[in-house]
Amino acid sequence: MSAVPGSTSTALLTDRYELTMVAAALADGTAQRRCVFEVFARRLPNGRRYGVVAGIGRLLEALADFRFAAAELDQLTGVVDAATLDWLSAYRFRGDVDGYPEGELYFPGSPILTVTGTFADTVMLETLVLSVLNHDSAVASAAARMVTAAGSRPLIEMGSRRTHEASAVAAARAAYLAGFEATSNLEAGRRYGIPTAGTAAHAFVLLHDDECAAFRSQVAALGSNTTLLIDTYDIRRGIENAIAVAGTELGSIRIDSGDLGVMAQQAREQLDALGALNTRIVVSGDLDEYAIAALRAEPVDFYGVGTSVVTGSGAPTAGMVYKLVEVDGRPVAKRSAAKESRGGRKAALRRHKPTGTALEEIVYPHATPPPSGPDDRVLPVPLVRGGEPVDGLPTLEQGRDRLRAALVSVPWEGLKLSHGEPAIPTTFIGRETCAP
Amino acid sequence: MSAVPGSTSTALLTDRYELTMVAAALADGTAQRRCVFEVFARRLPNGRRYGVVAGIGRLLEALADFRFAAAELDQLTGVVDAATLDWLSAYRFRGDVDGYPEGELYFPGSPILTVTGTFADTVMLETLVLSVLNHDSAVASAAARMVTAAGSRPLIEMGSRRTHEASAVAAARAAYLAGFEATSNLEAGRRYGIPTAGTAAHAFVLLHDDECAAFRSQVAALGSNTTLLIDTYDIRRGIENAIAVAGTELGSIRIDSGDLGVMAQQAREQLDALGALNTRIVVSGDLDEYAIAALRAEPVDFYGVGTSVVTGSGAPTAGMVYKLVEVDGRPVAKRSAAKESRGGRKAALRRHKPTGTALEEIVYPHATPPPSGPDDRVLPVPLVRGGEPVDGLPTLEQGRDRLRAALVSVPWEGLKLSHGEPAIPTTFIGRETCAP
Repeated sequence: MSAVPGSTSTALLTDRYELTMVAAALADGTAQRRCVFEVFARRLPNGRRYGVVAGIGRLLEALADFRFAAAELDQLTGVVDAATLDWLSAYRFRGDVDGYPEGELYFPGSPILTVTGTFADTVMLETLVLSVLNHDSAVASAAARMVTAAGSRPLIEMGSRRTHEASAVAAARAAYLAGFEATSNLEAGRRYGIPTAGTAAHAFVLLHDDECAAFRSQVAALGSNTTLLIDTYDIRRGIENAIAVAGTELGSIRIDSGDLGVMAQQAREQLDALGALNTRIVVSGDLDEYAIAALRAEPVDFYGVGTSVVTGSGAPTAGMVYKLVEVDGRPVAKRSAAKESRGGRKAALRRHKPTGTALEEIVYPHATPPPSGPDDRVLPVPLVRGGEPVDGLPTLEQGRDRLRAALVSVPWEGLKLSHGEPAIPTTFIGRETCAP
Repeated sequence: MSAVPGSTSTALLTDRYELTMVAAALADGTAQRRCVFEVFARRLPNGRRYGVVAGIGRLLEALADFRFAAAELDQLTGVVDAATLDWLSAYRFRGDVDGYPEGELYFPGSPILTVTGTFADTVMLETLVLSVLNHDSAVASAAARMVTAAGSRPLIEMGSRRTHEASAVAAARAAYLAGFEATSNLEAGRRYGIPTAGTAAHAFVLLHDDECAAFRSQVAALGSNTTLLIDTYDIRRGIENAIAVAGTELGSIRIDSGDLGVMAQQAREQLDALGALNTRIVVSGDLDEYAIAALRAEPVDFYGVGTSVVTGSGAPTAGMVYKLVEVDGRPVAKRSAAKESRGGRKAALRRHKPTGTALEEIVYPHATPPPSGPDDRVLPVPLVRGGEPVDGLPTLEQGRDRLRAALVSVPWEGLKLSHGEPAIPTTFIGRETCAP
């Protein structure tokens, strides 16, 4: 995402108050104080049992482009003073970032990202950090539940049309991280190497003089291993036409309407009776994790998921916040009766049983050694040092693997789709607090 | 939004199946058939009474950049054949677009956008059209309810951090269209000329040795007309400190936590007692249309709204679809028991009482003269002719005015926040249908 056409800067994807704070802090000398900001979620949305960290890779790319050139500085005249404009023109982030790697689970209070540096260096990143992590984690958290609900059956993300055109690309990435097999979105394919999928819409059938003409055209262009959409007019007749045109080696049929469970059963019986034993069944149309789970016993081979995955299935934002927790080594926190605020930089580890099942998330002061046992795993990893990404950051594929492994470690109750408590509790130890 | 860094093309913000359909249609000769696609919503989300059309301006900009250069074509090798790649390299949209202008209300079945041209020309735009309109209209539809709930008090959009970083810019635009006064998002200021707002976060207070030092610094940098955030430690003490530092000419205080109604009352009494009669009160923190309405009787001067507006307040997508309704003059529609599908190109007018109150949305065949009375208004306007935007398209400011006027015309029940039926019914006349 470029903020200015022709520019690749991400620096104006920022709330105005971050720059007015920088201006005031530069003027009063506090801008150089050493600060630690922490990203965490106070709760999981919608009675979810776990969250999935996503967007770290995108954030690091956006961070590299967080620079103020003339196009950006022009816009800031009148927002901040000349001295601040000068300072911004030379700005690049020189601090450190630590965080949970993509694909890791998180729970309420998990210190998902820690940004350290001067106040001026770190305060400006609030909006960009939160925009990326809140969006991508919301999508990945919903998508992971769908992957669990689908069991071993593959899912295709096809929700681009239901979200902002740039969110769509990021949503495809987050869904893939969570275990989806492919996306309909071509830019996600280009930018992230995600497999793309899709063959035809109802419009293609309607364009032609009849369904058989459309099917013949599609098979001629895409081969008999294609997926034919068979519910434009009549599903039973559509399947007959599909096999008549493509033969029993037809790759798949897609059903996009009706009671998908009943339709899938009837379609399977009909395909088998026609000898198309290997023709697979793709279902799509208003699927969410619950609808996917409800189709477990039906002869479905692929799920196409749109609206629900790109909008976080009822939780379109992860609700993470970016809070100042330390200034020049001194813990700080807003005083609040309603919101839990814990000062001081923190780290976290996940405690497991010897069998590998997760037991609890332990959040502890960063300055103390981890209270670590043999089956514990420290969660944050270095991501940026002195403004530069560290070497060997996990790839998107490694994030997929990480999540797959992490979900295996969740206690079985934690994989239930129903609303409830987090899968494991978060324990805060040795905490410094300013809460009353 | 540029799909490829360094490129301004929007052509890959597209689902793969649109291009495979083009490839098959180019091969079989149907690609040149004259098609009409229509955008409409089958229902309003969440029991809403009306929807607000938003995103038309953004869509026309994105359409101008919908071109396939080398970076895009490279990605499509293996997706479509060489003949299609050739065709795409010369592609630009040459069709026509008509639609409801931004800021117009819509109802179930309203023909919000009509795209005409060859099949190949028009089918490729499905994802881009829907991404833009579904996102922006969802935000504007929620934002308009908040504006109504706030009465004459101004609203500031500050939700960038709760949505994808590019969605944030579009959301600020949609909220402004709906009547918000300002946004926190600097890129929305640069790109669309929307007023930006914001002064300081809790982090700024925590950075300093005490609250007074922070307030002094902010007033020195931003003047005494600034907004001081007074709830970091103790609201009563915060207000004392604010007036002590800034004097009774302090512009505003902001309260971001607690029971905002009670806090606003106490703050008003305290400010008045301190002689700060003109110091205004800004409230923020998890506000949605219902919370805003609940504060009507309280001494609040500004509302800052975040999560709820950028996520459409429970309806993050408008659910619009892009359907082929006509091929070479022949009405077409998918046959479906559950979904209403009406073939044939349509237009619409809104019928009003002589007093100006809207009575019904009348959707009629485009080929017939509008069944128009003296108080009717035909809704779609020409937007694109032969691929080029028409002259004199409405500005964002004109869209704001249009919505303001349109909301005045809504029957009073239609402005209720509670769930219910659309404010006016949609009547389909002389319709061609393929439904059973």
